[in-house]
Amino acid sequence: MNPLYGGVEAGGTKFTCAIGKSSGEILAYEEIPTTSPSETLGKVTEFFKSNQPVVSLGVGAFGPVDLDSGSNTYGYITKTPKQGWSNVDIKGPLTQSLAIPIELETDVGCAGLGEYFFGVAKGINNILYLTIGTGIGGASLLNGRVQHGAAHPEMGHIFIPHDLKTDPFPGSCPFHGDCFEGLASGPAIEQRAGQRAEQVIDPVRWDLEANYIALGITNLIVTLSPKIVVMGGGLIKHGGLIKEVQSLAQKLINGYMALPTITIASDRNAVRGAIRLAAQGS
Amino acid sequence: MNPLYGGVEAGGTKFTCAIGKSSGEILAYEEIPTTSPSETLGKVTEFFKSNQPVVSLGVGAFGPVDLDSGSNTYGYITKTPKQGWSNVDIKGPLTQSLAIPIELETDVGCAGLGEYFFGVAKGINNILYLTIGTGIGGASLLNGRVQHGAAHPEMGHIFIPHDLKTDPFPGSCPFHGDCFEGLASGPAIEQRAGQRAEQVIDPVRWDLEANYIALGITNLIVTLSPKIVVMGGGLIKHGGLIKEVQSLAQKLINGYMALPTITIASDRNAVRGAIRLAAQGS
Repeated sequence: MNPLYGGVEAGGTKFTCAIGKSSGEILAYEEIPTTSPSETLGKVTEFFKSNQPVVSLGVGAFGPVDLDSGSNTYGYITKTPKQGWSNVDIKGPLTQSLAIPIELETDVGCAGLGEYFFGVAKGINNILYLTIGTGIGGASLLNGRVQHGAAHPEMGHIFIPHDLKTDPFPGSCPFHGDCFEGLASGPAIEQRAGQRAEQVIDPVRWDLEANYIALGITNLIVTLSPKIVVMGGGLIKHGGLIKEVQSLAQKLINGYMALPTITIASDRNAVRGAIRLAAQGS
Repeated sequence: MNPLYGGVEAGGTKFTCAIGKSSGEILAYEEIPTTSPSETLGKVTEFFKSNQPVVSLGVGAFGPVDLDSGSNTYGYITKTPKQGWSNVDIKGPLTQSLAIPIELETDVGCAGLGEYFFGVAKGINNILYLTIGTGIGGASLLNGRVQHGAAHPEMGHIFIPHDLKTDPFPGSCPFHGDCFEGLASGPAIEQRAGQRAEQVIDPVRWDLEANYIALGITNLIVTLSPKIVVMGGGLIKHGGLIKEVQSLAQKLINGYMALPTITIASDRNAVRGAIRLAAQGS
C-alpha cells in the first residue's frame, strides 16, 4: 500500500494544504487564508486531523525561514515583511499538534521540487524557480535538490537599476526600499497604482513591471546559469507579461549567453513538491 | 613517488604556468604576458616542454569558455570582450603540442578550487569566489565543486543600480554597457579616469568603485547565500577598499540576512587550483 503524505504551501496570502502520494496524486486539498499565526496553523492542524492520516508532512514556507537544524530558531519564520509573522515558530506547533515528522523548506524550494518531479522542469538538473507575488523569491535546484548556503537564498532582494525618471516610487521593501521585490512585487504595483494589481490596466505600468522582472531574471540567469526558469505567482499570468519579459531579457543579455526557457509554473505543483519533500524525508 | 601536474591560469593580462603536486607544492613557475593566442599558447607549451614532465594539465581560462564536452567549440574561448581571443581554441592546441590530458575550467573556478583546497576557504562547503580585474567574474563552489549550469555563470554581467548623477560614464562592457563589469572593472576605472587604475588616487572614484562592488557582491550573496566570499584580482587590494565594501554591503543588506566573511584571495592559489584540477581529472 502506498503511504500518504501531507503537504503545506505556506504563503503570505493563503496556506494550501493537501494529502497525496509520492507520485504526485492529490487526494484531499484545502486553501486556508493566511490570518494570524495561531489561527492559520490551527486550521492547518484541523485539516490534517479531519482527513486520512499521513505519515509525515512537508511544509514549504514563505520566509525568511530558519532551516538550520542546529539553530535556536530552527523552523521559525524570522524577519519577514509580513505583519504578525516575524519570529514565528511554524515547525514546533505543527509537530506538537500532529505528532508526525515535519520536513521544512522554503515555499519556492517546494515549488521548484514540484516542477522538477511533476512539472515542466521534470528531470532537468539545473532549475531556477522564481515567484513574483506578495514577495519575490527564488530557488536554485541542482539535480533535484534545493540549494542552501549560509541560509537559504533571498533572490528577491537583489538590487536592480531603478528607472527613476518614469518611476519615482521609492520601493515597497521595508528592508531595502527599491530592491527587485521593492520594485516588482504585488505590493509595489499596488502602492504605485492605488488599486489591486489585477485591476491595473495601464500598459505603461505593466511595461515597467516587465522591465524590472527582465532585469531581475537576467541577473539570476547570469549568476546561476539555469537550464530552465519556471515562474510562479499570480502576476506573471497577466496577459502578455511573460512574452515581454522573455523579449526584454533576450535584449538585456544581448547574445552574451543563450537565454534559457522561461516558462510558467503549474499552481498545483507547489503543494505536490511539499508532499514529495515529506516522502523523501530530510 | 608523487606525480607532477601542470597548472595554467589563463588571464587577460598574463598566463601563469606552474608545475606542482596535488598537495599544492609548486616546483616551477612562470608568468607569460597575454599577447596573441598563438604566441601565448606557444610560450605555455615551451614552459611545459622545458621543465619536468607532468602527467596532466589543468587550465583555468578567462571566458566565456565552452566547457560542454558535447559541443563543437568545446575548449574554446567564445565571445570575449578581449580583443583577438574570441572563438579561440585553447584546449586543442595544448592537447596537440603537449600530448597529455587537459582539464579545463573557468579562471575563477580554478581560483575558487585553490581557495577551497589550500586557502582561506579551506573545506568550506559553500564559497563564492569573485575576481575584479580586466573583467569581473565569479564562481560558486558547493562541496569543493565548481557549479555550472547551461553554461558557466557570468556573474560579472549582472545589472546593478548605476549612480548616473555622480557617474554619467556609460559603462565599458561591449555587450551590456553599464553592467557590474561595465561599471567596476579595471577598464571602467581607466576609461573614466584616463589613467591606469593603480594610478587613480581621487577618493571619490574609489568610493564609487566601493559602492558598485558592494552592490554587486550583495546581489551575489542574496542569490547564492555563500558562507564566505573570497575576492581576487588586483583592484580589491587598493588601500581600504575591501573594508569599505564590507561596510557598504552590510548597510545594503540592512540586517535582512547575515553578511558572510568577505576576504582577499592569495594570488598563488589560482594556479594551485589549476594543478589540483589536473590531479583530480574531469
